[in-house]
Amino acid sequence: MRMGEGVEWALHCCLNLTWVEDGEAVTATKLARFYGLPRDYLNKQLQALSRAGVMSSVPGPRGGFRLARTAEAITVLDVVVAIEGREPAFRCDQILAAGPGGSADVDYVETCLISQTLRAADLAWRRELASRTIADLKASVEQRYPHTPQRTRDWFLNLPA
Amino acid sequence: MRMGEGVEWALHCCLNLTWVEDGEAVTATKLARFYGLPRDYLNKQLQALSRAGVMSSVPGPRGGFRLARTAEAITVLDVVVAIEGREPAFRCDQILAAGPGGSADVDYVETCLISQTLRAADLAWRRELASRTIADLKASVEQRYPHTPQRTRDWFLNLPA
Repeated sequence: MRMGEGVEWALHCCLNLTWVEDGEAVTATKLARFYGLPRDYLNKQLQALSRAGVMSSVPGPRGGFRLARTAEAITVLDVVVAIEGREPAFRCDQILAAGPGGSADVDYVETCLISQTLRAADLAWRRELASRTIADLKASVEQRYPHTPQRTRDWFLNLPA
Repeated sequence: MRMGEGVEWALHCCLNLTWVEDGEAVTATKLARFYGLPRDYLNKQLQALSRAGVMSSVPGPRGGFRLARTAEAITVLDVVVAIEGREPAFRCDQILAAGPGGSADVDYVETCLISQTLRAADLAWRRELASRTIADLKASVEQRYPHTPQRTRDWFLNLPA
């Protein structure tokens, strides 16, 4: 069970977009060059973030990507779900239905204690990711690394489109 | 990001083994037939559980698999890790190292706030799974479904090896 590398990329891109000039869109090429990431593959993640309403894709010569909502309104879970999908890590196959005394009429996803335990762990994971927003990350980074916002802004300004 | 179906199978097999006669080994064939699972594929999971010290593989005509430890000493996390591996779901690729001001000397797994957040979620997931043992599951099932232990024992006795 492995989370794709796109989650890390997406979160860093969201964070970086909080530091560019208000509402300014940044191209996929610039976002990719910032960390030396493969542009086409990153672009796929950015499109997924747009479909999920985390980013907006802005067309035109000054186009690119920007956050679709305030950083306070985007949780880390929103970004993870945009990239990894809504499907929980554990999907109960209800094998109890095929066992002795099993019934096709019972929803074992709900009644099976093993299913409940694995779903509780999924929930704990989601709850943790939902408890932090991009704004929280931004505030923590700015406190710990005060030069990051200006440095990030300057880099995007000086990079070719 | 998806947990393999083997986890569900493995947990049900561990639970079922708590209900057979003390120390009795059950063949992979019997364990698979209980839920109509593919025997060879289940056998791979049982071998993984043996390697992880959750089950013991007993050779010989009365051989098969039994729990290697008491049900109190096997957590749900032990079973998940035996099947899915020790690797956490999130692996930080340290893309900050390639960014502006990045350094090969810094361990960004530790310093990056995004990495910390995703690892905290992994930890919450593990903590939840580690908080329940096979004995806890057994006790909950026996309380809710009091006929399950005897029915399970009878089925294994009456199934051909």
